[in-house]
Amino acid sequence: MSERAIAARIQASEGRSAPAGALAPLVHGGDLAWARRRFPAAPEPLLDLSTGINPHAYPLPPMPADAFTRLPSAEADARVRHLAATVYGAPDAAHVTLAPGTQILLPLLAGLVPPGRAAVLGPTYAEHARAARLAGHDVHDVTDAAALVEADLAVLVNPNNPDGRLLARAAVEDLLAARGGRGLMVVDEAFMDVAPDGVSVASLTSMPGLAVLRSFGKFYGLAGLRLGALAAVPATVARIAAQLGPWAVSGVALTIAEAALADQPWRTAMRERLAGEVRRLDALLTGAGLAPSGTDLFRMVESAQAPMLFERLGRAGLVVRCFEAMPQRLRFGLPPDDAAWARLAAALA
Amino acid sequence: MSERAIAARIQASEGRSAPAGALAPLVHGGDLAWARRRFPAAPEPLLDLSTGINPHAYPLPPMPADAFTRLPSAEADARVRHLAATVYGAPDAAHVTLAPGTQILLPLLAGLVPPGRAAVLGPTYAEHARAARLAGHDVHDVTDAAALVEADLAVLVNPNNPDGRLLARAAVEDLLAARGGRGLMVVDEAFMDVAPDGVSVASLTSMPGLAVLRSFGKFYGLAGLRLGALAAVPATVARIAAQLGPWAVSGVALTIAEAALADQPWRTAMRERLAGEVRRLDALLTGAGLAPSGTDLFRMVESAQAPMLFERLGRAGLVVRCFEAMPQRLRFGLPPDDAAWARLAAALA
Repeated sequence: MSERAIAARIQASEGRSAPAGALAPLVHGGDLAWARRRFPAAPEPLLDLSTGINPHAYPLPPMPADAFTRLPSAEADARVRHLAATVYGAPDAAHVTLAPGTQILLPLLAGLVPPGRAAVLGPTYAEHARAARLAGHDVHDVTDAAALVEADLAVLVNPNNPDGRLLARAAVEDLLAARGGRGLMVVDEAFMDVAPDGVSVASLTSMPGLAVLRSFGKFYGLAGLRLGALAAVPATVARIAAQLGPWAVSGVALTIAEAALADQPWRTAMRERLAGEVRRLDALLTGAGLAPSGTDLFRMVESAQAPMLFERLGRAGLVVRCFEAMPQRLRFGLPPDDAAWARLAAALA
Repeated sequence: MSERAIAARIQASEGRSAPAGALAPLVHGGDLAWARRRFPAAPEPLLDLSTGINPHAYPLPPMPADAFTRLPSAEADARVRHLAATVYGAPDAAHVTLAPGTQILLPLLAGLVPPGRAAVLGPTYAEHARAARLAGHDVHDVTDAAALVEADLAVLVNPNNPDGRLLARAAVEDLLAARGGRGLMVVDEAFMDVAPDGVSVASLTSMPGLAVLRSFGKFYGLAGLRLGALAAVPATVARIAAQLGPWAVSGVALTIAEAALADQPWRTAMRERLAGEVRRLDALLTGAGLAPSGTDLFRMVESAQAPMLFERLGRAGLVVRCFEAMPQRLRFGLPPDDAAWARLAAALA
């Protein structure tokens, strides 16, 4: 059976066939199948700029066969937790648990708090609100950080996605103090690897009521591995680890993360490289009359021209991130190579 | 810092340092670090026969870079769900969700049932009882399948681990009928790939109240990948999928599973090969005066001599699975190659 025939059968069996001409809104970046439906005549290969994933992946280390064949060992997990604690600034390995991506942690963390009022500082990554609703919370999208104080579950993405808004560490500390240990505050630091030093609050996770999330795949350009870390007090870490069970992270991810997290020179060089590439991207966007903000892994622009620009780029095979609820916004990831930069420059000219 | 120094720091930071001479009981098979502490003078390399994982792994297909770098696509996930439904006999892809190992599904499934009475047909894989307790159930280990009827959460491992007890499909159907749609019955078919055809109840998952688990890593010898499948009614599948989120399974696992699940000839040949190797293992065990039972991926023996045999094998560098609560039982996995067969034969002689 051809891939197309399989796809048709799957779609039919799941009742997913949309009415002719209709296209469900994009939910996440990186969905090239959506982009192909949206721009069927776009020249291939499409250039995917719709994510905030580093296009310069950490080079894969030699992979022993038993990373695939054996159950991941508790010792490898402990070594990576130790490295993660060091790199991310958590007190120690007992304050860290690993997961197959931070995504899977969102409903588990939301479920640690009895159903109540959840506040998500937005607009931001939509999965936080979805996870909080799944855990039974009454979810409020708030735009003022002060509104996080009274919530049972408070969610802050810092730096924020997609606009890059960055709360200083002192501001987050003030919020935590004002909350006085109520419920749980989740600080999603998915893009903190490219933020200025000293902003992360991972070092504060000896305080109960704080959970810090760090993503491995974005900065290391290895989103397909599925690896993320939670930093929190050991009791919270133990509770979440018990739910994930003994082998939640693949041996492949542990092997690669152990090499990558130990590689401080790569990290330093990559931060400089990404900062330089973002300056280059900003020059292109500014030249096109746009005013970018964001992090060193993505830039957001806000403009009445955004829908037209999305259309123009898409027809040229350049896929950027649009947002159903905020059509005036677009998010640009970094082009991977010179040919991609040239395509983007030409499309923006 | 050396690996040993890192390990010491981790142990210290987690308060894990056991009193001198003490060794915590083995919790799961495949823990070579435990075996090295238990048999510090054993000759290396240790031969690990402590798991039920196929030692003849499915050959890794060529791996495109984007299996590592990009977020796993919904299309790849759907293709693997379709293949899993076909191979495992579930009604269709809408009745299947994938997970990073079935382990992570146990607390999620147990959590679908309001806290009540859970019955686990045992002795069996210990994680089911742990997951049920975590979800707030009052857990009973039962030894008669009839005791599963009245439980809110009923758990059956079929074929069972470690003794290989196999309930016929009609018996499982009778149990389901007697339960009359109450709560949830979890049938863990982790080792069903090597059971006789027609025993799996995956095809019955259009009935509410039934969840069937299938493991990828055991039969395909790729436990480090972390991949498992849940078959259940689409509403249950959707609920669990929502908790797992959009990218729970790695791109690497999806790529390999898509090749492996489509490979019927490999599957047929491997079942024959494993059946032959189990006959060879049984001949050795029988020759040593033992009476093996089990599946074609592991054999269990029960004997008053078991603790002494465990000791003798361990000192020779052969690690088999012992069970803290059942010291008269040992479980043997299959040796990977001729040298390993010779070592086992010599140690049992």
